[in-house]
Order: sequence, then structure tokens, then C-alpha cells
Amino acid sequence: MRLLTVLVIGASISLNSQAQTPSSSIDKKVSDLISRMTLEEKVGQMTQLTIEPFLKMANGTQPIYPHQIDEEKLSVAIKKYKIGSILNVGGNAQTKENWRNRIATIQRHALQERLKIPIIYGVDAIRGNNYTTDAVLFPHQIAQAASFNPSLAKKGAEITAYETRASFLPWNFSPVLDLGRQPMWPRIYETYGEDPYLVAEMGKAVVAGYQGNGAITDKYHVAACLKHFMGYSMPLSGHDRTPSWIPEREMREYFLPQFATAVKSGAKSVMVNSGEINGVPVHANKHILTDILKGELQFKGFVVSDWQDIEYLYQRHKVAKDNKEAVMMGVNAGIDMSMVPMDFTFCEALVELVKEGKVPMSRVNDAVSRILKVKYELGLFENPTGNTEDYPLFNSAEHNKANYDIAAECITLLKNNNAVLPLSVGKKILVTGPSANSMRALNGGWSRNWQGTNSDTSEITKNTILEGIRSVFGVDNVDYTEGVNFENAINVNEAVSKAANADVIVLCIGENSYTETPGNINDLNISSQQIELAKALAAKGKPIVLVLTEGRPRIISQIEPVASAVLHTYLLGNEGGNVVADAIAGKINPSGKLPYTYPRASNSLINYYHKFTETLEGQDPAGYNPQWEFGYGLSYTTFKYSNLKLSSNALNASGSITASVDVTNSGKIAGKESVLLFVSDLVASITPEAKRLRGFEKIFLAPGETRTVHFKITPDKLSFININLKRVTEPGEFKVQIGDQTGTFQYR
Amino acid sequence: MRLLTVLVIGASISLNSQAQTPSSSIDKKVSDLISRMTLEEKVGQMTQLTIEPFLKMANGTQPIYPHQIDEEKLSVAIKKYKIGSILNVGGNAQTKENWRNRIATIQRHALQERLKIPIIYGVDAIRGNNYTTDAVLFPHQIAQAASFNPSLAKKGAEITAYETRASFLPWNFSPVLDLGRQPMWPRIYETYGEDPYLVAEMGKAVVAGYQGNGAITDKYHVAACLKHFMGYSMPLSGHDRTPSWIPEREMREYFLPQFATAVKSGAKSVMVNSGEINGVPVHANKHILTDILKGELQFKGFVVSDWQDIEYLYQRHKVAKDNKEAVMMGVNAGIDMSMVPMDFTFCEALVELVKEGKVPMSRVNDAVSRILKVKYELGLFENPTGNTEDYPLFNSAEHNKANYDIAAECITLLKNNNAVLPLSVGKKILVTGPSANSMRALNGGWSRNWQGTNSDTSEITKNTILEGIRSVFGVDNVDYTEGVNFENAINVNEAVSKAANADVIVLCIGENSYTETPGNINDLNISSQQIELAKALAAKGKPIVLVLTEGRPRIISQIEPVASAVLHTYLLGNEGGNVVADAIAGKINPSGKLPYTYPRASNSLINYYHKFTETLEGQDPAGYNPQWEFGYGLSYTTFKYSNLKLSSNALNASGSITASVDVTNSGKIAGKESVLLFVSDLVASITPEAKRLRGFEKIFLAPGETRTVHFKITPDKLSFININLKRVTEPGEFKVQIGDQTGTFQYR
Repeated sequence: MRLLTVLVIGASISLNSQAQTPSSSIDKKVSDLISRMTLEEKVGQMTQLTIEPFLKMANGTQPIYPHQIDEEKLSVAIKKYKIGSILNVGGNAQTKENWRNRIATIQRHALQERLKIPIIYGVDAIRGNNYTTDAVLFPHQIAQAASFNPSLAKKGAEITAYETRASFLPWNFSPVLDLGRQPMWPRIYETYGEDPYLVAEMGKAVVAGYQGNGAITDKYHVAACLKHFMGYSMPLSGHDRTPSWIPEREMREYFLPQFATAVKSGAKSVMVNSGEINGVPVHANKHILTDILKGELQFKGFVVSDWQDIEYLYQRHKVAKDNKEAVMMGVNAGIDMSMVPMDFTFCEALVELVKEGKVPMSRVNDAVSRILKVKYELGLFENPTGNTEDYPLFNSAEHNKANYDIAAECITLLKNNNAVLPLSVGKKILVTGPSANSMRALNGGWSRNWQGTNSDTSEITKNTILEGIRSVFGVDNVDYTEGVNFENAINVNEAVSKAANADVIVLCIGENSYTETPGNINDLNISSQQIELAKALAAKGKPIVLVLTEGRPRIISQIEPVASAVLHTYLLGNEGGNVVADAIAGKINPSGKLPYTYPRASNSLINYYHKFTETLEGQDPAGYNPQWEFGYGLSYTTFKYSNLKLSSNALNASGSITASVDVTNSGKIAGKESVLLFVSDLVASITPEAKRLRGFEKIFLAPGETRTVHFKITPDKLSFININLKRVTEPGEFKVQIGDQTGTFQYR
Repeated sequence: MRLLTVLVIGASISLNSQAQTPSSSIDKKVSDLISRMTLEEKVGQMTQLTIEPFLKMANGTQPIYPHQIDEEKLSVAIKKYKIGSILNVGGNAQTKENWRNRIATIQRHALQERLKIPIIYGVDAIRGNNYTTDAVLFPHQIAQAASFNPSLAKKGAEITAYETRASFLPWNFSPVLDLGRQPMWPRIYETYGEDPYLVAEMGKAVVAGYQGNGAITDKYHVAACLKHFMGYSMPLSGHDRTPSWIPEREMREYFLPQFATAVKSGAKSVMVNSGEINGVPVHANKHILTDILKGELQFKGFVVSDWQDIEYLYQRHKVAKDNKEAVMMGVNAGIDMSMVPMDFTFCEALVELVKEGKVPMSRVNDAVSRILKVKYELGLFENPTGNTEDYPLFNSAEHNKANYDIAAECITLLKNNNAVLPLSVGKKILVTGPSANSMRALNGGWSRNWQGTNSDTSEITKNTILEGIRSVFGVDNVDYTEGVNFENAINVNEAVSKAANADVIVLCIGENSYTETPGNINDLNISSQQIELAKALAAKGKPIVLVLTEGRPRIISQIEPVASAVLHTYLLGNEGGNVVADAIAGKINPSGKLPYTYPRASNSLINYYHKFTETLEGQDPAGYNPQWEFGYGLSYTTFKYSNLKLSSNALNASGSITASVDVTNSGKIAGKESVLLFVSDLVASITPEAKRLRGFEKIFLAPGETRTVHFKITPDKLSFININLKRVTEPGEFKVQIGDQTGTFQYR
């Protein structure tokens, strides 16, 4: 299996190296084309509509399934309004064949126009090509972050790109590079967690996986879309699309670096933060979209709005008095393409605004150049659709095995008292809880539809946790009852009475699927019914293995003490049931580590890189005291750290030092360990954080094996944004921490 | 009673008008004095120590009671280090006679020095002169804000000033002008609530009450100290003295205006925010302390650090490598006096720094000038102590009656189903709950000691809620059992069984006393034991009157439905027991209105002046939906609003319009009503808030009486801080709301 997976990657790399149109030639084609375009044609290129208005309806409101294009309506959009982009599925996932027909139909219309500019179609293939039936559904980003293994994330992105292109889709609204440090936020599972460096490393790998390594993208790669630029993930209230307060220094320290890294990697598009920061909706913020993104970061791709967000400038944010003013603000701020998404008001307004001189033609030309360039780079002019025979590995055993391998490195063991795990086959197991037999709970949102409501039927061929455990431990050894659903008691007494016959209880709790505003909550505590079930089961005195299936770290401090073991699965995707079962059985040795701080109380949401003032021991009854720390995760073996060495005790501006540490597998079975380098600045002009992650490496160790891990520390890894908004490294003492090993050095 | 109270105020006004040393003459005295001072003498003036090191100790760690000054140690401080200021009580409250002796001793030492500069002694007399035994303990600021009656707050401040001066204390670390919009923060009860305008109006009145109306202060007034400049009240985590993120625009919109108003009122000192904002400790922030406070606001008084906060620059914040660097940062940032508070390290470091040129002498001279000026303005050179015979009204019936009158306007009726309140005498009442028989719960922190731990013994002569109710309804009609304390069950079953014999249950719940870091919590929900008691009592089917005694709005959404009536008392102070009893009996008709939003869920802490994006009806399952809104409060009568009129439908830059509304007492008993004017900007370049309070007036109406209330609306009342940090009023449509009446006008 492994061999075949490698071959796939090899194939994609060799395709990358096929010389296609070089970049300078593209620039010339773009300028030639622009010189021949009318204002209306240019504005059309800047317009993106959702597919819904172009689908035939069954009863006026719901699309016919499988979807059919209403070519008459499509023709109005393309012929009259000359739109350049379409997005979305229009409800539930379609087959890849339906997608291919859809794209072919759309491109046929586009290519009938005088300039023959192909449509660029974008979708949220954010964890696999989830709007296409049968495409692989990978773990969500937060789970992949727990692997601390960017190469695995890259592999997942390559397969996602392959399977997305298999639907003739060239553009993926992924990855999310928002910083997941506000656990209330309903999209935290779409992030790579709370650490900017981890987010940047994962993001860089995934952009490479999506786009391949060249500037020009082949038929196995797609354009990435970095989102949501910038500062979307930390609303004051924790609720999606509500106001943030992010001072510019903190913006540059925590939210910008991961975007800067990914822009440098050549990401072809960026989607805008739907929220407001410091009172200004980001869709109207020229400083962020133009000065920082296109200026400082030298971003050469194009900027697309999020859903309806130019209209929301007047409908919700109330910074514009009407649509026309909203369009003016958005385009002048630097938005190149508006995800309108339902009508032609954007086109009409922008044409008028240019004619009135309120939006300069230079701004329009810049926007259209950026969009056309990406269309050329994606090869859409040459191949506006694709070749059906090019994608034999779609939903193949190889791809599904890769999904399993990724998920196997995500699952995180948070507690294992008395080595209750792994369980030997033959044990009598009671499986219970609302997520025990639910593909929906394993997959979360963005699973064949937006809110992920259909996984229990659409993923019927995949194993739930219950099915996985029955497959591994035998049906006769595994009893089941639901106990409670996420909000209500079902049969708690039955669960308790069945517990009497079991050797061990596997209690699967967490959240049902959601994303965005519908996922807003008022209380981070896990639902009270699930707490009741856990407490009722605990009274039986049997060991409880708690399995958490949740998109954000719901507070479980009331029931954590009753669990002997805790496995955190995040949203593991379609292989989650098998991976949980194999981890419980010891076929997988868990190696995930938390990519965020797991809080202990709903009003103590403090990140690992808090300031020293948040840890006043003995004085503060409510200081930093999480349930589990960022980077925490156990194994069935043990790893011993020793012999930390610094190559020098002093570093200067042009130099580097190497920190090395010996890591030994001191237990009896093989395992993987993510070795994390933390550095603390002990005195700085901006209050220094307790520590910051500055490097990580995942290693495999056989029992008894020792490896020396090296980290190169350069001055930029000690830097921070100072009060003048400059990145600086200040002289002074720094502390290095790897595992339980520490050392100090001076920067001079 | 009322007459006498007025006479006191009258007296203080007449004293104000006594011409003392004029201001220009003071400036000359100050510069003369400075010209004769050594560096060490200057640095001494900038040094404030706490009294503890100068108290005789009983066993080496605890002061002898009553306190005695160790004159040998005091002499070192004054003779050798020439310190200029002392603060604090040194544990528990002392008698006013002890205070007078203490001050006299200290000043005797100070005046033996060659320049005869008196010490300025400061205390936290933040709700009455609470560190002096028997001084009146008023409601805490948050309760006074609920009165929406600045003239009452001013009266309380005048009495506080009188009783503080009665202890020969000339300087009060009050008022708190921090914005109370983060309900987790353990000092929210020390604020005037979440609205900047309400805070500013209350603050202005209280500064006038403390200082009198002239620049020169007489023996019945004290120097105010505005705190904590600036942005202290909104730590990200909700925990005291932890990092805040406050962009400068939001700082100027929400946190600065109330300080600007109070500085304009002539406040003589300002205390600094102990926290960090955007990574910079405010004690090291020159932009805030010098550019804004002394520059823009033209503050002419002096700036004092908070407790140990210069030392904390290196001990906690870690922006300085040692004490000397911390002193340099703090003084150069604009701190005039350091609350060191335990040793002479500040003096020693600052002398060295000046000699080394690291702190300019001009900065020292500026600081000392500001301090000396206030000492002259307070009359300390002429009268460094006071005259014992000048304070006959200390803890008088008149002062206590004023306290009752103030508290009577604070208590807030939040629910009164089926007019269960008021109760007629003769009803059988069960009083229960942890705050029912507790002076500590009524008074909270800052009550004879820092954490307010001794009120149950120190305030033994005052009525608890139980004692108040027994006094009004008769001992035979009032049964009592505690039920639970704040954290543990005591005798819930007894409470439930006693409920069977009662007509009505008065359930008193809330918080025990606390302030600052020891008051940090992890969960805003009220303690589970109190919820259990409420639920157990509810099962008896008797009407429950819930009385909330709490410093912050603890979540009660689980039990609010079981209450027929809810009375919010905040921390009402020493008359709280009587006021609650009289409100229950109908002798007081409640007229308080909430000065903050009372949240419904622990992770939905959204203020009333949220943005429109936080109220997406039908789309957001967790949007703005508080338990009770800011400004909410019922009465035993009803008020009808009608006939809203705007004097014009258009306003221009130099004009004003008047909004008038008729308010009618449509019920059967007399009552007071706070009439609140809200204005909404419907479109603005900064996302406009849902509404903002722009005026209020409290009126008294006999049954059937109607009054027309007028509000003048000028362009500045429509202004906000724009993206360029300028205060602007933008043309467009505005909506006025008074009660249920609305109207719109245009600003052109």
C-alpha cells in the first residue's frame, strides 16, 4: 500500500516538471487579453456566483437530484453579465460524473463568448473533495495538526487535489490559516490550532500539496485559497462573524506570519475575513487587503470575498448605505473577485462606479489581471475541463489507506491510568454514547454538505466507532446502546445495566456536526446529558475509556476524573471508526499531541503562550490551569529525553546555534514521538510569552532505540513584533525547552 | 433628616468658597520650594510606602491592635529617604482617633525636616471611609450606577470626603472610572458599569463630591484619584491584572472619555492600570501616561503607580531586567509617584538614574511639582492634620440616612410575576440562602479590610437582610435557615421542610466578598450549591423572591424561571438589609436599572452596545440574548411613554435638536423612573453600535402624573472615533429611542 501511495506522489511530481506556459508568457497573454476587454467583460471576470440559480428546480426551491444545469439561466450570466467564476455545489454532494458534466456545460457556454475565457469554478474541498460523492473524507485540519507531521498533511492535500481535479474542479477554498486560539469559535476545527508556527508549517506543506511545486499547475493540482485573511478566528464573543479587537501588533505577531509563509509558497488566491476588526469590516479594509497583503507580502494571486460579504457591508455591517457604496468600498479596498453570490447587482454597480470614476479603471485592470493570470496558470485556457481517464485512483484503496495512515497519527491519547489501554481482544466491551455509532460525529461539518448533516447515510459504507470496534473485537464481545444523544437522554438506564456485564466501557461523547454561525454556542461545557451519562456509568465501577469526537475542546472537567483513559479524535473523518478501534486494540500506537490548550473551565480560556502575569502561583485562584496543555499527548510506550546540548551559549545576529537532545523509546513497543522545541525570551520590550514553539520533528523509535534530534536556532526564531510594529530580536537571555530538558543562552 | 443632609452639603459649599491660597501663588510656592530641594529630597517626594513597615508588630508579622507607629522606623523613611507619601491601613480598619494620632505622628516627623513638607497620606475610601471603623459604608459603585442618579452619588462622595477627612486623611484612591463591560472581572462591582456615558456622568459628580467645587480643597474635601488609567477593566481572560487587547480606536471610544471628563473636572491625581495593553505594561507606557493623559487631556495633577507596579515591571511583566531599569521605564513613561510600597529601592535607583542621566532632572522636577502642588491645594502645608472638633457628623444619623436613601435608589427589581411583591406584613416568610444573614455578602470587598472578610463582626450593629425582614415583618412571621453556604450544602432539607410552612420564600444568593486577583473565577455561573438549593425549594411550589447579592452578574439562567420575583442588590453596603426589607414590604418602590448587561450564559458576554452582526435573528443560535438588558429595571408602579417629539428632523454641525417625551405614572403608587435616551447611528464608517446611551434623567411621578422630559441632542452626542482616531460626526440618519418611543432625524 505504502509503495502505491508513494507512486502517486511521484507521478504528480513528474507532472509538475512538465514545462507548460512560462510565467512571463502568461503575463503577456494577460495584458493582451485585458487590452481587448470591455469594461463589462472585466467586471464579469470579477464576479463569482453560486451555482444555485443555474440549477433546475424540482419544486421551485429545491434542486433536482442529481443536479441539472438550467442552461437558459446560465446563458444570461455568461452571455449578458460575462461572469468569470462559479462556486459551490448547491446543496448535497454530486457524483464526479455529474460534476464533470456540470463543468463541461459551463465551460462550453464560456468558450462560446468572443474572448473564450474559461470559468474558474471553486469549492470548499477543505478536507478532501467533500462535495463529490465517494471522494475521500480526511480528518479535519485540527486533527491533522495533532499529527505534527506536515508531510502527512501534504500527502492528504495531494490526494485532495487529485480527487478535486477528478471532478474537473481547479480551485479549492483551502487551507484555513486562521489561528485557532479561541475555543468557542465554531470553526476552530477547520484550523491547525493555536500556535502560529505550527499553522505556518502545516499551511506551507498543504499549499505545496494542493498546487504542486511549480508556478504552473497540472491536472493533478488545484489552486489553493488561503483563508480568511486576516484575524477571523478571534471574535471577542467567540461567535462566528462577530467583532474582533486585534491591535496591529498582535495581528502581526500571531495572525499574519502563517499567511506570509503561504503567500511566499505561491498560493494563488486568498479569501477575506468576513468579520470586522477594530470596527472596520475586513472586506472594506484597504490597509489589510492592499497595503499588507499585496504590498508588504507581495501577493500576486487574487483576492476573493467570502459569501455575500460585499453586500453585508451594508446589510449587516452598516458601513455602506447601499449596495453600490458597498461595492465601491470592497473593490477599492482590494477585493478582486466578489462572491456575490446570487444576483448581478455587483456587476451593475461596478460598471456604474467605474464610469463615474469612483472605482479607478486601474483597480479593475489589476483585479482582472490577477484573476486571468491564475486561470492561465491553472491551464484552464488549454484544458477548461479535464480527461475522465486521468483519475483512476479516485476513492481508491490507496487513497483510503493514506487517509487511514493520516488519521492514525492524529488520534491523541490524553490519559491512560494503569495502562487500561490497549485492550486485549476477548474483553467484553460496552460501547455507548451519542457519537459511538455516528459517521456524522466523526466527520463534522463540510461532509457532503455544509453542515455535515448527511454523513450517517452518505457514508454508510464506512465504519462508525462501534462498527470499527465490533470488527476488531468481534460482535459477540461488543454490546451497544446509545445512552443519550447530544441533547437528550435516550436510554441511560439500559446503558448502566449493560455496563454491569462489561469489562470496560467505551464512552463516545462530543458534538454533532456544525460549522460557521449555526455552530455558535453559549457555553463551552459539554452538554449536560452527556455528563449525566458518564456519571451514571461511573457508578458501576468499570473502567471507562472516554472517546472525544468534537470540533472544539468542550469542557469535560466534571467527568474527566471518572475516565481511566481518554482518546481525543477531534473530527477524524471516514477512517475514524477504524482508527479508534485499532488504537483501542493497540494496532495503532497513538502519537498525536494537542494542537491547542484544552481548557478546564468555560471562563478560563488561556493559551499556552500566555504571559507570565497569567500564572501567578498561589495568588490567582483562576490562573492558567488547563485540563491538558498544548503539545500534550501520551503513547503506549514511553519516551525519555536526555542530554540537551546547545552548540554555544551565545548567539549573534548572523549566527545560529544548534540545540540537540537524545530521545529514547524507554518502553516496550515501537512508537512515534513529536519532539517540540520551545523557546522563552526572559526579558523583552513587549511582555514575553511563557514560551513559544520554535521547531518540531516527528520521529519513529523502536523499543530501546535512541535518536538525537537537532534544531537549528537562528535569531529570527527569537524575534517578535515590537511596539513600532517591527520584527526584532532583542539581546538578552533565552531559555530552551525540549521535553523536560532545559538550557539557556545569550543573544548578543 | 433630609434638611440636615442638605445643610451638610450647604456647609461644604460655603467652605469651598473661602478663599485660600490662589493657584498662581501655589505655582510660585512650588517652584520656590523645588529650587531649594536636593535630588534626594525630590526623589523622596516621588516615593510612597505602605504603612506596614512602620507599625509595631505583635509577633514579628502581625501589627499590634490598635496600631502603634514604630517611630524609629518611620524616622528612617522620613529623615534618611525623605519619603513624601504613605498609604494603606495595614490590615483591618482603625478608629478615627487612631488615624488622627497616626497622621499627627507622621506629620510631626515630616515637619521636623528642613523643608517642612507634609506627607500626603492616601487610602482606598472607595465606598465610604472604609478603613476607619464606624465610617459609613455606602453601596459599591456598581450599585450607585444603578440609581442613574449622579446627585445622590455626589452626596455619598461628599459624606465620604467628610468622614475621610475626619480621620485626617486628605487623599482618596477613588473613583474607579474603568468601564465595567467584562462581567468576569473581579472588580466590576467597583465600576459604574458598562456604559461610557453613565460612567462619565457618575464620575464627574463624584469628583465634585470629593473635591468640592474649587481648585483649592478645604477640610471637608479630599483629593480624588481617578483609576485605573487606562483600559484596566477588560482583560482578555476576564482575570484581574492579565493582558488586554485594546486597539487605540476602541481605547478612545470606550475607555478614555470618562477619564477626559473627570480630568476636566479638576481631579488631582490619577492611578495607573496595573495590567498590560497590547503587550505593553501601562506603567511603562509613555503614550498613555504622558502623550494622552498629560498632553492631550492636559492633566495637571500627579500620576501614582498602583501597588508595587514599578517592581512588577521586572518581577512579573519582564519588560525590565531589574529594579533600576523598571524605575527608569516607569518614571520616564510619566509616573510621578511610585507606590513602591515596602522598601527604599525606588529612591536608591532613581537617585542613581538621575545622576547617570538616564532619567532627566526635568522629568523629576515635573513630577515633584505636580505632587507639591496638590499638597498645597489640599492645604497640607497650613493644616497637615486636622481639628478633631470639625467632624461632628461622622457616622451620624444624618450620614446613615443618606446612605439608606442612596441604597434605596440602587436596588433593582428585575422580575415581579403576578405582582408577588410587595409582600404585606403578616405573611409567613422563609428567609434562606448564604447571603440572607451576612453583612459580608451585603458589603463585599473593601469593607474594613481589603477582601472584606470581617463585615459579619465589624458591622454587627447593622441589619442583615434577615434582620431587616424580621424588623419589618416581625420575628414571628419570619423563619430562617441557611440552606447552603456559597460552596457547600448546610441544611437544604431543613430549608425545604421549613418552606412548607411559609407563604413565600426569600432566597438570598450571590457571592462572598472578594476583590482583585483573589476574586478571579473560572466560571461565571453561580455556584452549583446555590442552584441546588433553589431547585429544591422550587419543588415546594411556594413563590420565591430571589435576592441577588453579588459583585458581578453571576449566571442564574437555570434558576431564574423558578423565581416569581428577582431583586438585584449588587453590594448595597451597610443599609442593604434595611433597604431589601423595605423594598420587599413596599416601603421602598424600586427604581434602579441595570448598569450592565446581565448575561444568560457563561460564554455569551455581549454588551448592549454590540454591533448589528451580533444579533442575526434566526441565524445565530447564540447571539445577543441576555438574561436582562442594560437599563432594565421594574417598579411597583408602571410608567407609560408617549408623544416622542423631535424639535426638528434635521441637525447641522452648529445646531441642536431637542427630543421630548411624556412619561406618565400609569400605576397606583408613586415612583421614580430613570428616563434613558438612546441614539443609533444607522450607517457609519466604523460599524455602528446597535445603540448608545446619550442622556438620562431620573424623575419622580405621583400616581397619574405626567412629566415631559427633554433631552438636547448636539452633534457631539452623535460622534465616534473614526479610523484615523479622530472624533467625528458623520452625516446620515440617526434613530432616537426613549422607552418604547422612537424617531429619526438627519445629521447634515
